[in-house]
Amino acid sequence: MSDPRLKNLLDGLADGSVQVVDLTQPLSETTPVLVLPDPFANTPHLSRKRLSRYDADGPAWAWDVLELGEHTGTHLDAPIHWITGKEGEDVASIPPARLVGPAVVIDRTAAVAEDPGYLLTVADLEAHEVEHGPIQPGSWVLFRTGWSARANDEAAFLNAGAEGPVTPGPDVEASRWLAEHPNVVGFGVETVGIDAGAAGGFDPGFPVHNFLLGAGRYGLTQLANLDALPASGALIVVAPLKLVDGTGSPSRVLAFVER
Amino acid sequence: MSDPRLKNLLDGLADGSVQVVDLTQPLSETTPVLVLPDPFANTPHLSRKRLSRYDADGPAWAWDVLELGEHTGTHLDAPIHWITGKEGEDVASIPPARLVGPAVVIDRTAAVAEDPGYLLTVADLEAHEVEHGPIQPGSWVLFRTGWSARANDEAAFLNAGAEGPVTPGPDVEASRWLAEHPNVVGFGVETVGIDAGAAGGFDPGFPVHNFLLGAGRYGLTQLANLDALPASGALIVVAPLKLVDGTGSPSRVLAFVER
Ligand SMILES: [Mn+2]
Ligand SMILES: [Mn+2]
Repeated sequence: MSDPRLKNLLDGLADGSVQVVDLTQPLSETTPVLVLPDPFANTPHLSRKRLSRYDADGPAWAWDVLELGEHTGTHLDAPIHWITGKEGEDVASIPPARLVGPAVVIDRTAAVAEDPGYLLTVADLEAHEVEHGPIQPGSWVLFRTGWSARANDEAAFLNAGAEGPVTPGPDVEASRWLAEHPNVVGFGVETVGIDAGAAGGFDPGFPVHNFLLGAGRYGLTQLANLDALPASGALIVVAPLKLVDGTGSPSRVLAFVER
Repeated sequence: MSDPRLKNLLDGLADGSVQVVDLTQPLSETTPVLVLPDPFANTPHLSRKRLSRYDADGPAWAWDVLELGEHTGTHLDAPIHWITGKEGEDVASIPPARLVGPAVVIDRTAAVAEDPGYLLTVADLEAHEVEHGPIQPGSWVLFRTGWSARANDEAAFLNAGAEGPVTPGPDVEASRWLAEHPNVVGFGVETVGIDAGAAGGFDPGFPVHNFLLGAGRYGLTQLANLDALPASGALIVVAPLKLVDGTGSPSRVLAFVER
């Protein structure tokens, strides 16, 4: 190769100066899923049926069949998931180059520890650009909240009380800002959905879904290990299944980080 | 960042000198699946159930539930898929760093056009190392055959006649060579499985599964666009779902290539 860009990366992976960080939550029967109020349809938890286990149905091999929602665990929201994006891309139509890009990590872990319903603001987003530099083209903005520590306890993860779920997310103006920023390809969170728990009562309802997917951008949920990423400088690889007509997909999400 | 390795890659992606190639087949109800003879269990095709479509079940959103086998479409075989690897890793336990590495592409498209049951040999593998350099640590060896051109026609893709399926794959000695090479992490193919169609009758049966998974390496199937990769120098990202106890997983597979 005449150009050393990839060789440098391969060398960095080989010598440990570039590390692969897994931003994905484990996927199993206990993976938390969204719960919507009546009368809306709800998604099941993952379940499996056994085909064989080194037995008469397959003496040398083991394999299962999976049932799971498109929007289960660490997953991507495609534009057609929301009515504002219904003329947009399904999962399989997303250009692969948009699945790889700079990761911008906005850390509000301390604020969310104080207030689990904390709303991310335009001031937060603008302050991040002042401190860490402008958001570069093709970026995925990741909202770090520490929420992934709750992922093994569905009740704590969904955090729903009498008045509905209390989880962090962008306010209406921050949702609009993300959707209108020319360099933001996607927005990722540690929680069960890209909107705040209270966002069904916002105007418009579910503004991240409404604005971001309507603008042809992507959502990414239930991320882990965001504390292993710098505020800027990491590269994210978002890997949904190539699901034709998919409104979303369980995904593997990896990041490359320099040590 | 003091080290420019990732910045160079991000710059290359931004200026087009590094491109993202999608090695994944589209996933849908028509994705071909393996067919085993009686009395063995078989995997279903992908199917979906609708949860809502911008309707009373979800006025602003659309989403579905999926049923699919672990081993459907472009997918990874984990060590526990085979009895020889049953004490090994499930999908979720694979270290993320092993999912990213050099891609080594061995092209036998011309031979397979002549003989669809063509068997890859140790001589083929050794000749590739002589011509393109030694296989580097952490490599995924990809067997390019042109078979992906059949992927939209399940009968042509499975190519089964009265004497069983006729599809290309490694012979017994090549299977052993791959499993014993210290630098081979995984082996990928364009066909429905990592073994040749005739491999059920080899000794041992299904030698790639037997040796490779038994050695703690990984299989990767139903790849597309291998003709867009150089013989060496590309980087592959293999992205299965992080499926706990998974014997395999539908996967997104991307490659970075220099232009
Ligand atoms: Mn979703
Ligand atoms: Mn398989």
